[in-house]
Amino acid sequence: MRNFAFGLAVLALASSANAQQAQPAPVVAPISAEQQRNVERLRNAALESDLAWDIVEGLVTDVGPRLAASEAEARAREWSAAMLRRQGFSNVRIEPFTMPFWDAVREEASIVSPSRQPMVIAALGGSAPTPEGGLEAEVIRFESLAALEAATSAQVQGRIVFIDERMTRTQDGSGYGPAVAKRGGCASRAQARGAAACIIRSVGTDTQRVAHQGGSVRQMPLGTSLPVAALSPADADVLGRLAQGGAVRVNLNIQVEVRDEAPSGNVIAEIRGRERPEEIVLLAAHLDSWDLGQGAVDDGAGVAIITAAAKLIRDLPRRPRRTIRILLAGAEENGVFGGREYGRVHGSETHVVAAESDFGAGRIYSVSTLFNEDALQYARAIQRQLAPLGVNLGNNTTGGGADVDAIRRTGAAIVDLNQDGSLYFDVHHTPNDTLDAIDPEALRQNVAAWAVFAYLVADSDWVLTPPAPPAE
Amino acid sequence: MRNFAFGLAVLALASSANAQQAQPAPVVAPISAEQQRNVERLRNAALESDLAWDIVEGLVTDVGPRLAASEAEARAREWSAAMLRRQGFSNVRIEPFTMPFWDAVREEASIVSPSRQPMVIAALGGSAPTPEGGLEAEVIRFESLAALEAATSAQVQGRIVFIDERMTRTQDGSGYGPAVAKRGGCASRAQARGAAACIIRSVGTDTQRVAHQGGSVRQMPLGTSLPVAALSPADADVLGRLAQGGAVRVNLNIQVEVRDEAPSGNVIAEIRGRERPEEIVLLAAHLDSWDLGQGAVDDGAGVAIITAAAKLIRDLPRRPRRTIRILLAGAEENGVFGGREYGRVHGSETHVVAAESDFGAGRIYSVSTLFNEDALQYARAIQRQLAPLGVNLGNNTTGGGADVDAIRRTGAAIVDLNQDGSLYFDVHHTPNDTLDAIDPEALRQNVAAWAVFAYLVADSDWVLTPPAPPAE
Repeated sequence: MRNFAFGLAVLALASSANAQQAQPAPVVAPISAEQQRNVERLRNAALESDLAWDIVEGLVTDVGPRLAASEAEARAREWSAAMLRRQGFSNVRIEPFTMPFWDAVREEASIVSPSRQPMVIAALGGSAPTPEGGLEAEVIRFESLAALEAATSAQVQGRIVFIDERMTRTQDGSGYGPAVAKRGGCASRAQARGAAACIIRSVGTDTQRVAHQGGSVRQMPLGTSLPVAALSPADADVLGRLAQGGAVRVNLNIQVEVRDEAPSGNVIAEIRGRERPEEIVLLAAHLDSWDLGQGAVDDGAGVAIITAAAKLIRDLPRRPRRTIRILLAGAEENGVFGGREYGRVHGSETHVVAAESDFGAGRIYSVSTLFNEDALQYARAIQRQLAPLGVNLGNNTTGGGADVDAIRRTGAAIVDLNQDGSLYFDVHHTPNDTLDAIDPEALRQNVAAWAVFAYLVADSDWVLTPPAPPAE
Repeated sequence: MRNFAFGLAVLALASSANAQQAQPAPVVAPISAEQQRNVERLRNAALESDLAWDIVEGLVTDVGPRLAASEAEARAREWSAAMLRRQGFSNVRIEPFTMPFWDAVREEASIVSPSRQPMVIAALGGSAPTPEGGLEAEVIRFESLAALEAATSAQVQGRIVFIDERMTRTQDGSGYGPAVAKRGGCASRAQARGAAACIIRSVGTDTQRVAHQGGSVRQMPLGTSLPVAALSPADADVLGRLAQGGAVRVNLNIQVEVRDEAPSGNVIAEIRGRERPEEIVLLAAHLDSWDLGQGAVDDGAGVAIITAAAKLIRDLPRRPRRTIRILLAGAEENGVFGGREYGRVHGSETHVVAAESDFGAGRIYSVSTLFNEDALQYARAIQRQLAPLGVNLGNNTTGGGADVDAIRRTGAAIVDLNQDGSLYFDVHHTPNDTLDAIDPEALRQNVAAWAVFAYLVADSDWVLTPPAPPAE
């Protein structure tokens, strides 16, 4: 019986396969024998290479955290340019720009009644300062940003708004959007209702005693907003229990340093295309970081992945047809200043495709695209070469990352190598964004996938561009 | 063939069991039918009770961290005494004493060259202050305390000693002793060689961006020692890499508040014995905590476990024969002041047994004793009733914990309910010592084991005491 049943199952599978074959097979663009050899060489070399690890280790050791427009970010640009020259890239240059500067020089909070205890907080980017010594007020707790939006000024007036909303852990990072709304929305909603300040449960999925940094406003400069900070999960737990039990008063002390204009910059490097040098395959990551952590995961990993991938392509017997350009953008965290500046300066150039690595170093599990429908054969060709790395074919509706957004808006095609972000928001924007949070094996898999993708597009004459630029 | 082989294995097992039965079976002291009923009632009630969770949640919510001899520790005493009265215990009282006070009011460090970056540190208990604004010196790295001991003054003079020794993760906590030696030994060894300060890789098993607090000297008061601090693992990683690559300078800024005499105290509560009230079963935990965390695991859990266990015994149809006494000791972390004070005041009373819960809330996996050899039948009787909770019989050479050490030295028997400490040193003395680090189910198992053990000894006339007090 068992064998018979097994035979039936096999027949059913075969029949199902036949049914599928009755449909026309999706077209997969061919690649040459040389390209196939190079793809295999890139995959194998990447899976044995420590280069990406060495780059991110070097960045966090020699530079450390590098807040947008800070002196440390300037050191990171110099460090990166020297490293890129050492790796043999062409046209290595720093493209400077200026932007407003914001930093928290003091961020402290404590419950003062019903009993006194300290809390672990992080001032959010763009927060206004409190008076010297802090402000003390009663807390009003809301389950969500929506609950605050439903509140009246009479309830909120003069109080510290506390939004206690939790984030959902997901593989693809889709829990971030709903959770981060309170980070960007709390200050304005609270201010409109006359609140004294706004504090939020950190936007994160961990239970560590750290607060998650992040921008609290869409656009710098600020200082016109409220004081706004994130609490560690354990402190949000305590405050939530106390606030549900009766009146709670909190002292919040945030002091900030702001400058209207400070230097930042993008770092650029290239492998010049051998046949079509004016056609650019853009690989982007960002160089700045929040400063409680080391910026290892966000986005030292991305810097290391795209650099190591490009270096492996540079080491091939001959350069690809098209130019591969590395963009290490400045000042992403605080308002995508580097990405927008790149768009302003380079938006008129021909970008065949743009892709960004800015979601840590989790394993890549799928490749999504924003291609012309006629170009999906090329998406399939890329995925076929990524399949040995465990990469599936994703959708054709991806938006790309923040630093390639300006280039997407010029009509460029986009590729997203989707990383497993299940653990990303445990350390994102926290003191725990350190080197040990990177899995070296997953990092190598990332490099392999990026090298294969970038090489295939760069060594082709594929036209990927969607028929028309997407609406603004 | 398979069945035959299986039959052989069963025969072999049976034969082995017969061989064991040829030895005289170890004597297990009998318990009465009433006691058996009560044991089962205690086990079942404990495994369904939220009382321990409610106690530790209340302590961390209403009081929070409670440094020895601080105002917060005083609040913890008042909170505990009120809670113990509410639970219906007798003779609830605070026994005050005074002791030196030490607190860090500033603890900052940064690498200043070859590049500037901040580090996460914790000043260690008893640390001397640095000059205002910190001291800056070159770092000399040692792999271990032993390596420092082998160094000369010429190497160390004027430098900041950095001991980069790692701790081994173990179930029974045996990795702590070797690892903590550097915490207690660095300052004196470094000072003897003319060092400016001492910093150590945190004594812990985690990779979180937190430093582990802890005492750096055997006995307060201090201020005569060096500035001494622990680094987070990620910062020790960076500093270690830089120090192996060339000269590294660090700025260390520790400011402390010290007072020669400050108030602490022990909190005591009892279930008065119905037949032998002068014979005491002592259940101890400590009320103070280091102050970066909430003191949930160390030792809010112990406070909750012994209190909830005693409360379940109090709820039995009749009180046990002997007195059960709860000791919530003050100021354990900073020099076992409460435990020693308890010994000074109560050492002449009859302590049948003393036991301490001060290793978090991991599941109890064995019961160890320090009994008269003739009393091992009672150890077996206890373990037999703990077996349904997954508790094995341990050794008879246990030392007991710090807060019952003074009582052990009077010749009292000791019981240790050994907890799984595999994860304990991930959060021990860190900001991550928060409520969420406690597993509610393991906490209930602890309460069950403590209730059964304490009841069995308290409702007996067992003589457990070793023949002679151990040597000092």
